[in-house]
Amino acid sequence: MEKNRLEAFSDGVIAIIITIMVLELHVPGGTDLAALKEKLPVFLSYVLSFIYVGIYWNNHHHMFQAVKRVGGGILWANLHLLFWLSLFPFATAWAGDNHLVPTPVAAYGFVLFMAAAAYKILQQAIICHEGRDSLLARAVGGDWKGKVSPLASLSAIPLAFVSVWIAIGLYVFVALLWLVPDRRIERVLEQKED
Amino acid sequence: MEKNRLEAFSDGVIAIIITIMVLELHVPGGTDLAALKEKLPVFLSYVLSFIYVGIYWNNHHHMFQAVKRVGGGILWANLHLLFWLSLFPFATAWAGDNHLVPTPVAAYGFVLFMAAAAYKILQQAIICHEGRDSLLARAVGGDWKGKVSPLASLSAIPLAFVSVWIAIGLYVFVALLWLVPDRRIERVLEQKED
Amino acid sequence: MEKNRLEAFSDGVIAIIITIMVLELHVPGGTDLAALKEKLPVFLSYVLSFIYVGIYWNNHHHMFQAVKRVGGGILWANLHLLFWLSLFPFATAWAGDNHLVPTPVAAYGFVLFMAAAAYKILQQAIICHEGRDSLLARAVGGDWKGKVSPLASLSAIPLAFVSVWIAIGLYVFVALLWLVPDRRIERVLEQKED
Amino acid sequence: MEKNRLEAFSDGVIAIIITIMVLELHVPGGTDLAALKEKLPVFLSYVLSFIYVGIYWNNHHHMFQAVKRVGGGILWANLHLLFWLSLFPFATAWAGDNHLVPTPVAAYGFVLFMAAAAYKILQQAIICHEGRDSLLARAVGGDWKGKVSPLASLSAIPLAFVSVWIAIGLYVFVALLWLVPDRRIERVLEQKED
Repeated sequence: MEKNRLEAFSDGVIAIIITIMVLELHVPGGTDLAALKEKLPVFLSYVLSFIYVGIYWNNHHHMFQAVKRVGGGILWANLHLLFWLSLFPFATAWAGDNHLVPTPVAAYGFVLFMAAAAYKILQQAIICHEGRDSLLARAVGGDWKGKVSPLASLSAIPLAFVSVWIAIGLYVFVALLWLVPDRRIERVLEQKED
Repeated sequence: MEKNRLEAFSDGVIAIIITIMVLELHVPGGTDLAALKEKLPVFLSYVLSFIYVGIYWNNHHHMFQAVKRVGGGILWANLHLLFWLSLFPFATAWAGDNHLVPTPVAAYGFVLFMAAAAYKILQQAIICHEGRDSLLARAVGGDWKGKVSPLASLSAIPLAFVSVWIAIGLYVFVALLWLVPDRRIERVLEQKED
Repeated sequence: MEKNRLEAFSDGVIAIIITIMVLELHVPGGTDLAALKEKLPVFLSYVLSFIYVGIYWNNHHHMFQAVKRVGGGILWANLHLLFWLSLFPFATAWAGDNHLVPTPVAAYGFVLFMAAAAYKILQQAIICHEGRDSLLARAVGGDWKGKVSPLASLSAIPLAFVSVWIAIGLYVFVALLWLVPDRRIERVLEQKED
Repeated sequence: MEKNRLEAFSDGVIAIIITIMVLELHVPGGTDLAALKEKLPVFLSYVLSFIYVGIYWNNHHHMFQAVKRVGGGILWANLHLLFWLSLFPFATAWAGDNHLVPTPVAAYGFVLFMAAAAYKILQQAIICHEGRDSLLARAVGGDWKGKVSPLASLSAIPLAFVSVWIAIGLYVFVALLWLVPDRRIERVLEQKED
């Protein structure tokens, strides 16, 4: 099987997810800055989700460059990832509309966690398929980011009921982890792993 | 005619269908777990439809790998399949909002049946075009799955009025049939066919 | 400039147009067949528009096979066509919700006419670019279908105020004209042209 | 990294943005021309936004033809551009629904300005990557359009509070600047730059 069509399909789904989230940014009722300001929580959760989906697309893009052919297992692991990504618009809108309420903030963390777990499963499926000595297996290495991210999202779920700000802080922290390529932290952590 | 653009267009439409279904998952009215729990039937029907559309994409992907060139008949048979797939969001939302009511559950089965029939027509159109000895004709073989699936969906339509659970059970059964590649069942059924 | 990206972009836009029309098929209020029956006019207008957009994609696909390179004029003529196609969901929903009312039915005809005119402009832009002796210029020939279709849509606009059925009949007639490749009619009309 | 998937993803997102804007063109309440006339401001703002997104796609298309490979910086600069473009449907709907009210018209200008700035950042990221002597650096040259456009959008934000017509006039002016390739103006301005 060729990987091109799987990449094209994934790009299509991710492009739609990243764009239809904006449909939840409903037009404000009023026509002044105060009406716009009310939309700020939804807008900020949209920004965060946009960055997350962008990170997933970016990583997906990189991961599949190391792939040569795809089997049925990879196809379904990929669809499983797309399923959890497709829940981002729902989770974003619910958390954005009710920004400081624990349950929607925790639900957002649950979707983040499941997406991170699905990504990990896809990665493992590809490594199984390509072999332990493959380009991807070596590139992934210890994969501390891939371990820290789901743990942070998972711990944010109960912590949202302590304070939503801790949960939101964890979501922003994970996004920054992938966004800012801090070479020093990477090197230190990689040395620790060695 | 080249098959690439037909594949790309189909991928685009299927990617949109699988993603816009999530727009029917409206944000809950409340902000607690009880409000989320009310969304469970819609969510589960979304999961089922996501799997179905995933199966169709998967099978479409495989089928067109055996195709070399496409004619007008295949183009329209393909659009016919996409038409019935495009009704999945509508059928999913109607059945999901009213999970235990016979008519919407039967309507879901009707859309499933029409999609399965449209897939069969597309397959025949390709086999006619490629020839009885073609790669696809031999790969399809007895095609017991392709025969059982529309029959199960069709029989679910009247059975939904007996009990919606029988109909839902049949929908889940057909999805598992394609999802789980149980070699033993396949072999037994293939031996029966021989 | 390469034509591949223009084709891919057009495919993307047309795939989205053909699919988001289904979002106007709102879930019925009730849960019985009577509630579904109320949706019949919207459903039928969806079917008609699906066929029209399918025809445009099909013809667009064929036309660009005869194209080698694209210039700025073709890019904008193509976007102009996509603009009018993008109004199909709006026109379909308005006409479908109010099936027997003249103004929405006439508005549908206006959008059909503008799309047909935009297609003709795009065709001319390509022929200008490729030359009078090009493959496309010869393939198009007298182009009686391309002349009859906009005329039929244009005449349906005032005729909708006489009887909506005449207008709807004309829309169906034009769709069938492209859908059913009746060789005899073609030959007779081509002989007339000679 | 290959540029193909970045182009395909951008095409997908832009195709969706340009198309879902039409979802904000809600079906009129009435069924006569008066009901349609009420939609005129929304329709005109849709036309303007369609042209803007078309211009961005067109320019994006051209810019990436001069690109050979893409790095992480370009990927994120591109996602940043797509983010601001994704706010077009929101800004269009808010300004269109309240056409003559200063704040929504100013907000539209803000989104235009941010998109123009994001495009400029992406251009710089590519020039940095490709080198000062690259094809793109020479093609861009003085880039007076790329300087005038964000300035015009930026100045429209306060001017909307003086008169919305000045702001709207500026938006139309910038669109025409890119749409109409007036060679004379270009030459004069290029000579000034020399």
